[in-house]
Amino acid sequence: MSLSLYQCSVPTFERSLNAFSAILDKAAAHAAACKFDPAVYMTMRLRPDMLAFARQIQIFCDHAKNGSARLAGVEAPRFEDNEVSLEELKARIDKTLKVLASFDPKAIDAGAEREIVFSVGPAKAKMIGANYLVHYALPNFYFHLTTAYAILRYAGVPVGKRDYLGVVPGFTLI
Amino acid sequence: MSLSLYQCSVPTFERSLNAFSAILDKAAAHAAACKFDPAVYMTMRLRPDMLAFARQIQIFCDHAKNGSARLAGVEAPRFEDNEVSLEELKARIDKTLKVLASFDPKAIDAGAEREIVFSVGPAKAKMIGANYLVHYALPNFYFHLTTAYAILRYAGVPVGKRDYLGVVPGFTLI
Repeated sequence: MSLSLYQCSVPTFERSLNAFSAILDKAAAHAAACKFDPAVYMTMRLRPDMLAFARQIQIFCDHAKNGSARLAGVEAPRFEDNEVSLEELKARIDKTLKVLASFDPKAIDAGAEREIVFSVGPAKAKMIGANYLVHYALPNFYFHLTTAYAILRYAGVPVGKRDYLGVVPGFTLI
Repeated sequence: MSLSLYQCSVPTFERSLNAFSAILDKAAAHAAACKFDPAVYMTMRLRPDMLAFARQIQIFCDHAKNGSARLAGVEAPRFEDNEVSLEELKARIDKTLKVLASFDPKAIDAGAEREIVFSVGPAKAKMIGANYLVHYALPNFYFHLTTAYAILRYAGVPVGKRDYLGVVPGFTLI
């Protein structure tokens, strides 16, 4: 009758990260078809005062990795934000998926009532685990994921919501 | 040690809908400051083959309302998609918030293992309640919410992620 913290976190991140890796393949194919350098995507943004495409991906990977680690009460490995190509962004997603696979579901579930302390820019904030997942890690993750998708959409990459959703567990057409 | 379906659904939708209502106020102020008709926003999109701004809002309102109703096993009121102004979009959000407030948390929690049947374009699909919330209702909701936000960002409305997140329950700076 309820959801475990693990159920709400790691499988969501995994589904979305795998989906976005496939979206990056479509972005590469679009660049090839339109004869432009795919590195052009890296600094694209919808407005000058918005984070660039590559940064959106680094951030959603980190919300997945660090959010899950904080719930599990362990330290996540730190990744440098130094990707300069779509291949390197795909590798960043792969590294993130490997970290996600390393978490003990029981440790994540045990984070529901623990106080989570995390950085917010130069400051620190705290929240109870369940609230942190539902009202901070997930909305932040989806925000940067959808923004990265929107930038590719704006760039003309032929993707749709099905690409964004990825493989939805248990979804059955009737 | 676990989350209720209610905890993962209605409060998420409420936080985000209230946040977006305030974002619409900033969009109206931006239109006034730049001396353009705020109705211009209604048909804005990032690409010609993308749903327009107003439609994104109608859809995320419906994912919140219909998603929660399906989990609760009740029929949600159907809203016409006929908004032509920011004020009417704000009213749509208010109506959606009223429906969300009417659900019995226990009925939503009881939907975790129930089979949910829903329309996907012209087809029908089914999923178990817990999966439906985590892997379908929430990602769809956040997708259209963030896309609507991205369209306003692209239009120059001075909003940031804090506007998108809204009032985060239990978030405390330390």
